[in-house]
Amino acid sequence: MIDLYTWSTPNGRKISIMLEESGLPYNVHAIDIGKGDQHAESFLAMNPNGKIPVIVDQDNGKTVFESSVILIYLANKTGRQFLPEDHSEQYWITLQWLMFQVAHVGPMLGQVHHFTRFNPGIAPYAEERYLNEGLRLYKVMDAHLERHEFLAGNYSIADMATWPWIARFNWQTVDINEYPNVLRWYLSIAKRPAVQRAWNVPPSDQPMPMP
Amino acid sequence: MIDLYTWSTPNGRKISIMLEESGLPYNVHAIDIGKGDQHAESFLAMNPNGKIPVIVDQDNGKTVFESSVILIYLANKTGRQFLPEDHSEQYWITLQWLMFQVAHVGPMLGQVHHFTRFNPGIAPYAEERYLNEGLRLYKVMDAHLERHEFLAGNYSIADMATWPWIARFNWQTVDINEYPNVLRWYLSIAKRPAVQRAWNVPPSDQPMPMP
Repeated sequence: MIDLYTWSTPNGRKISIMLEESGLPYNVHAIDIGKGDQHAESFLAMNPNGKIPVIVDQDNGKTVFESSVILIYLANKTGRQFLPEDHSEQYWITLQWLMFQVAHVGPMLGQVHHFTRFNPGIAPYAEERYLNEGLRLYKVMDAHLERHEFLAGNYSIADMATWPWIARFNWQTVDINEYPNVLRWYLSIAKRPAVQRAWNVPPSDQPMPMP
Repeated sequence: MIDLYTWSTPNGRKISIMLEESGLPYNVHAIDIGKGDQHAESFLAMNPNGKIPVIVDQDNGKTVFESSVILIYLANKTGRQFLPEDHSEQYWITLQWLMFQVAHVGPMLGQVHHFTRFNPGIAPYAEERYLNEGLRLYKVMDAHLERHEFLAGNYSIADMATWPWIARFNWQTVDINEYPNVLRWYLSIAKRPAVQRAWNVPPSDQPMPMP
């Protein structure tokens, strides 16, 4: 059994998607980041950086923070369905596209959310900077997905990490139709039953609809 | 033999440090990002995201992009001196602190460099936002390093990834003396001969001195 400490954000959804795809049983603990639950001492004891998601694996007592490490950990726990064998050609390709999300897609689209969605007009230079960088990342993905069904070839933890960020294209004021390969990839993942179950985690009475 | 495509930036130095620490022979190919070398078709063929560093391992022809994946790849190639055995307790701890750099320290201090060092006054709100986030990350590291000699206990690829970012504390207008544990950690790594050799890669006639 996995304890998942999470909130309904892209980084949180990476892990609910992985748990649903893997069929691992899990308990959800809502960490309301709007109310500051992530600053509680009990949460900081699990992740000193104060960020969701975090898991505790009841099978061995292990606590894991950083969503990308949780994905690798769960892939390892569940027979490597979504992360190829260690050090194989496909393993390195999958890690590269996972890190493309961790180092670029997440941090930069996160800034687009901050400036474009939540603080429009507060810093026009920054707003333009991050939107441009976001659009550049969409272009990189679109060109890559023209030749690959999924980011690392087969459906993998790299897609699970990236998809929840792209699911906020409306917040980002990005016209996803301009990126036909991203759109095709987005829709093929959106229709997966596991992804649909994972969307409303932690459960909300008024869930944001999946775009 | 490793071909290293790099420039004298924090992300580039991660890899020259790892290569020097490991004693692996390598050729340096300077990719002058000020002149836009990273946008050349030949470079984009190696990394479609157009970012240094990239390596090509001449032993097997493999190309690897994303600095964190290169670190894991080289650790694997060289007997795992700086990354513990796969799936061991220390392996997960090391990956967590490596990802703390990839997801937070790098992207956010990168924004501090952009606003505070290169564009002061252009967007005061953004300047304050990223400096505050940078200082928060210094605090997280300082508290952690109070109880640990290095980020993951022993000296590891997590330190090699993070140290070159902290080496720009002057650019960040951060008084490193306010973070005594970060300072102790910084200095202990700065005096390593491998790190000193790695600093001036690619070689420059007028190298920036290590602070």
